[in-house]
Amino acid sequence: MLSVQEAFQLILETVKPASPEQRTLFEAWHCVLAEGTVSDLNIPPFDKALMDGFAVKSSDCQNGKATLQIQEIIYAGSVPTISLQSGQTSQIMTGAPLPEGADAVVQIEHCQIDDAARSVKIDTGPVSPGKNMLPQSSVLEAGAPVLAAGTLLRPQEIGALAETGSPTVKVRRAPTVAILATGDELVAPEESPEPGQIRNSNEVMLHAQILQTDAKPQPLGIARDERNHLRSKIQEGLKSDFLLLSGGVSAGERDLVPSELEQAGVKQVFHMVNLKPGKPLWFGILERSDGDPCYIFGLPGNPVSSMVCFELFVRTAIRQFMGFPSPRPQVQQARLKNDYHTSGNRPTYQPARLEWEAGESTVSPLITMGSADLNSTVKANAVALFPTGNQHYQAGLKVDVFLW
Amino acid sequence: MLSVQEAFQLILETVKPASPEQRTLFEAWHCVLAEGTVSDLNIPPFDKALMDGFAVKSSDCQNGKATLQIQEIIYAGSVPTISLQSGQTSQIMTGAPLPEGADAVVQIEHCQIDDAARSVKIDTGPVSPGKNMLPQSSVLEAGAPVLAAGTLLRPQEIGALAETGSPTVKVRRAPTVAILATGDELVAPEESPEPGQIRNSNEVMLHAQILQTDAKPQPLGIARDERNHLRSKIQEGLKSDFLLLSGGVSAGERDLVPSELEQAGVKQVFHMVNLKPGKPLWFGILERSDGDPCYIFGLPGNPVSSMVCFELFVRTAIRQFMGFPSPRPQVQQARLKNDYHTSGNRPTYQPARLEWEAGESTVSPLITMGSADLNSTVKANAVALFPTGNQHYQAGLKVDVFLW
Repeated sequence: MLSVQEAFQLILETVKPASPEQRTLFEAWHCVLAEGTVSDLNIPPFDKALMDGFAVKSSDCQNGKATLQIQEIIYAGSVPTISLQSGQTSQIMTGAPLPEGADAVVQIEHCQIDDAARSVKIDTGPVSPGKNMLPQSSVLEAGAPVLAAGTLLRPQEIGALAETGSPTVKVRRAPTVAILATGDELVAPEESPEPGQIRNSNEVMLHAQILQTDAKPQPLGIARDERNHLRSKIQEGLKSDFLLLSGGVSAGERDLVPSELEQAGVKQVFHMVNLKPGKPLWFGILERSDGDPCYIFGLPGNPVSSMVCFELFVRTAIRQFMGFPSPRPQVQQARLKNDYHTSGNRPTYQPARLEWEAGESTVSPLITMGSADLNSTVKANAVALFPTGNQHYQAGLKVDVFLW
Repeated sequence: MLSVQEAFQLILETVKPASPEQRTLFEAWHCVLAEGTVSDLNIPPFDKALMDGFAVKSSDCQNGKATLQIQEIIYAGSVPTISLQSGQTSQIMTGAPLPEGADAVVQIEHCQIDDAARSVKIDTGPVSPGKNMLPQSSVLEAGAPVLAAGTLLRPQEIGALAETGSPTVKVRRAPTVAILATGDELVAPEESPEPGQIRNSNEVMLHAQILQTDAKPQPLGIARDERNHLRSKIQEGLKSDFLLLSGGVSAGERDLVPSELEQAGVKQVFHMVNLKPGKPLWFGILERSDGDPCYIFGLPGNPVSSMVCFELFVRTAIRQFMGFPSPRPQVQQARLKNDYHTSGNRPTYQPARLEWEAGESTVSPLITMGSADLNSTVKANAVALFPTGNQHYQAGLKVDVFLW
């Protein structure tokens, strides 16, 4: 059976990043840059005041005390007109350009203005060159690289792009993701289950997981375990970039999903992965005539299995589609808070509680009633990883975890 | 001057959580529950098979070997019709209800079916009662609480709500947040700055920060440092739940924002907070005739100050509006990776890089060229907190940090 790492590898080889498209910075948050950017100007473009106060020659105020003649007032957005000589100063606002001859700013709080004499009395500590100002191009020179291809655009990157002359950027879009829950035992959440039935909790859960990746969920409701109904729903779902089927992929006799996908022209990439929960995972691709393939995941119907498979495999595929340079889940280490015991011949991905205390992270695997126990995952904020085999893990041991 | 903690306190006393509203689970992701929920049914509602295989009496297979007579096939969603006697079994699919008399499931992989004899030969390990099945109501009993008021709805909570009969929930909406950048020195990101001008990077950055909180940004462009223009833009912004003004709140002579807000009927709650960067922060409230107030923040114009003030104060206010039980930034501890020196009479909130290595978190404060140096924040994923005063901090010391 395929290992988790082999499954990741096949997903990354199969899923092509979306074609880059141009977007404004208002539409680019949490996208990944498809091309690097350079600055079209010096940052700052001029010697810039960082405080409201008086622009001075630092040589005039070396001991922090001076009385200087006021030449003009320089507002942010305006241009100084008078070059300072020794004994002269100009009042200046935060963000405004320093006049020629000035090399420092004294904060307004340390200045006493004499309107009649058009002078200012400065009383502060020693003023060194560069005080309260940012020299031209000290942050970045025109032509210098700002952000590299593959950078995830957070608020600060978006601000830096705006500042450096990239009002639009090349990024890759997030995919549309259709959700199709299958199974005769399912009823909608607003219905009361008859004997033998359960509510379709996976659809809304997957919907939220998709939103969490910034992709666009397209819920298709419930497909019955009946070929014609399933077929028409699958056809609808295959129009999206991704189709997630929930249920219908294990060894049960009515698990029609793999055969119906094959009928629809979907090529299976893998079926069954060596992990617990989530073994029945199915993955395939449909090459479409428009050139953009559809990627199909058959997720196990048990809610905890479905959730784990999404966070591991579907999220990786979506991140690959969006152009993330490291699409796999980011694993960290944490110390086990309690003893833990594993059994069986598959690696365990156990819902767990990760906590940070005083610079150390600890993890407590959660006791669950099995992979149908969605309620236990409500306490989880992470998944703890344990290798194959019957093993006893002592509290204090470091184990791998990833956040979910 | 107000301390950071006093400013938090005033924000939390001023901002009222939004009125609860009913939403479907498709619209409730990342909202906070305004009312607790209870389950309307037992989870699971019946003894449920966790594997495809054969439902058995464990007493028939104590040593793992048995040949049993097949009674019927039970699919998920159907109801068993035959009660098992000793020596009998029914084939069963994952998710289906166990027949009366059965107390365990043997996986299909360990079963050999003899179609002619309508029997199955089981060859597996010892079968204990409860094997591969989840007993009725073992996860949750009907009437038991599922989620408490104040719970943030992640995918797993949404799934649990669907399962337990809460297809709609009472949650508090995210606010609309208008953004108004002020200053004659500003030009739009798509323009080339003339001498003395800079690009308006704060608007798109705040836009992205707002999206990151799930609130709805409403960018209003640039207001000139001219009373009539500023006034009409402010009137437009005061229709939103929040109005963020960028720039125009420090001690500069053209800082018209506080006086124009007062003219518009906005009551100042505080101005100036004892932190670096971000001291000029302004906060107020407008009581409107419709009963829903508008909350107004005047943010410093320097991009790094603006970013820090948003993450500390605006985010706290938005989380309070959305009903988060702990709206303040969540502080963790991390070890300093390098020596660090602070100076001045205000606590420092320094952009920093937080890293997790082998279960320990370390933090490196970033060298910046001051609060206009947006480029340095591109390397940051956190803010490190240092108390007031000229202090030397040695590498290895634990300091407070929060993620941004």
